[in-house]
Amino acid sequence: MTTAGGGWTLVASVHENNMYGKCTVGDRWSSEQGRNANRPDGEGTWANRVTFGTAEAATSDDYKNPGYFDIKFPVRFGIGTCKIDNGPAIPIVYDTGNADYTRSLYGPILRPHFEPGFITFRVFNNEKPAMAICSGTKPTVCDPEHFCIGGGGHFPQEAPRQCGDFTSFDWDGYVSAEGYDVSDRCDPQGGRGPGCTVRVPIISRRLCGAEIKEEKQR
Amino acid sequence: MTTAGGGWTLVASVHENNMYGKCTVGDRWSSEQGRNANRPDGEGTWANRVTFGTAEAATSDDYKNPGYFDIKFPVRFGIGTCKIDNGPAIPIVYDTGNADYTRSLYGPILRPHFEPGFITFRVFNNEKPAMAICSGTKPTVCDPEHFCIGGGGHFPQEAPRQCGDFTSFDWDGYVSAEGYDVSDRCDPQGGRGPGCTVRVPIISRRLCGAEIKEEKQR
Amino acid sequence: MTTAGGGWTLVASVHENNMYGKCTVGDRWSSEQGRNANRPDGEGTWANRVTFGTAEAATSDDYKNPGYFDIKFPVRFGIGTCKIDNGPAIPIVYDTGNADYTRSLYGPILRPHFEPGFITFRVFNNEKPAMAICSGTKPTVCDPEHFCIGGGGHFPQEAPRQCGDFTSFDWDGYVSAEGYDVSDRCDPQGGRGPGCTVRVPIISRRLCGAEIKEEKQR
Repeated sequence: MTTAGGGWTLVASVHENNMYGKCTVGDRWSSEQGRNANRPDGEGTWANRVTFGTAEAATSDDYKNPGYFDIKFPVRFGIGTCKIDNGPAIPIVYDTGNADYTRSLYGPILRPHFEPGFITFRVFNNEKPAMAICSGTKPTVCDPEHFCIGGGGHFPQEAPRQCGDFTSFDWDGYVSAEGYDVSDRCDPQGGRGPGCTVRVPIISRRLCGAEIKEEKQR
Repeated sequence: MTTAGGGWTLVASVHENNMYGKCTVGDRWSSEQGRNANRPDGEGTWANRVTFGTAEAATSDDYKNPGYFDIKFPVRFGIGTCKIDNGPAIPIVYDTGNADYTRSLYGPILRPHFEPGFITFRVFNNEKPAMAICSGTKPTVCDPEHFCIGGGGHFPQEAPRQCGDFTSFDWDGYVSAEGYDVSDRCDPQGGRGPGCTVRVPIISRRLCGAEIKEEKQR
Repeated sequence: MTTAGGGWTLVASVHENNMYGKCTVGDRWSSEQGRNANRPDGEGTWANRVTFGTAEAATSDDYKNPGYFDIKFPVRFGIGTCKIDNGPAIPIVYDTGNADYTRSLYGPILRPHFEPGFITFRVFNNEKPAMAICSGTKPTVCDPEHFCIGGGGHFPQEAPRQCGDFTSFDWDGYVSAEGYDVSDRCDPQGGRGPGCTVRVPIISRRLCGAEIKEEKQR
């Protein structure tokens, strides 16, 4: 690969092992023990030095290696307001694909919610939870819980419905076609498959010298 | 060891850390978050590339290393029918012990349920869940949940009673002598010991070039 | 460092990731699946060969490496009586600090409960649960659950209130100043911080050739 004149390194993957679980075991990038207003950082994975998983299993399990430490960005309920305090939105230099293709990966109802062609870090929604990464998108309104991933441990709206590594991807269910529905974004089996990992194909992103690669399973 | 003209390699162990837990934390070879018809593969451990544990702690914790990947066999609720779709039953070449000894490791009520001297992969029971491995046995009737281990994430009969790494070893309790009871097969303390790991002693099994070694703790 | 004429090696850390959780995920040094009289050893971590975590993340996650195996000491509900069967209390040779400073790390209500300047292994309380380590202290009465850490899987008093890696540090809550309260000992945010790890600074302890270093986060 030639992005930015060099290769890329996989430093992390965010795998949703159970779309039906709401901050249960395996939600290492949000909270593994339910939503709790007293745990605004959740597991703290986005900012601490804990590592887990392997590169080989990065699409079957959460993964984080020390290369990720360069990216660390605080993700905590209530430390900011949408959109004023959203983190950086880094433009993507596409090796393959383009912004239109990224947009097509999301269902029609979601497309007015973002500008494609970016990776955005630490965004807030209307109720003040922080999501950690928006893969391929920059939110333009304040409901990023339907397409951004990871976060802290407290998501007040109809709690615990929005708590988990894939936040509220399943707000409209698991098998419909055009709503705030998980099937549009990762799991054609309506959540019954072996879990899902958001990896946008052949998109390279650079921040602080480290990169995250994500791909969408289809 | 001289089985099949060479040594063997430990590629996995299935440790039951809490016989009272029904698909709880530590049931990595079935499901760690309860039984759920929407998660027919459970954790997916039998078919994915996730690894965990260490050889040194293989009798105190679940273990899986990349050598296991050669064995991968689909284990999923409902993808087959007992006994039509059961997986391969591989005859054991004993270095030490024999089929009669293997039979003696199980309680009298279980002995008519199997033929000893085999390791069998991916078997179904009457209600369609898949168990992953029968250690030392080939089931001859359709209740292998009492002596085969591992599986998917959905076990309908009196759910969640049969969900867990050791499936329904405790159907008749933890301390009786001759029923479908865990004490016959792994834990003389009636489930109060430090967990149990099925390892049949000095039995070597070869499938697809990899081997699993299991022993019974006594 | 020069303690005992040589350096020290970090072999373990005990991290409380959720002071509000009572034997939940992350309580690897006690029990990760609730208190249960049938699991008197809890996870068995204090005596088995399971390892986890990394030295780099030792203040953000539980950590145990094989160097710890030299220390192994049985920790099990009901195998002894306070104070008759308490384990060894090893005097600390301070490189920095002293016994008075150690005492000052604990709130006034706790100070009559211990003699500072020791690390004590495997202590019991009035209800027979075993705690694993008292960091910097030797209990003199039988309520060490408020300042000793780790243990088995069963803590009968008002169960499950005392179950967890940090036992009953929060008996009087999370934010008060002088009671049996967690804020005195590890978390000035009243349990809302990123978890806490007891590490007493620059204290070196030797037992069976291995050492544990713990520090208090402030």
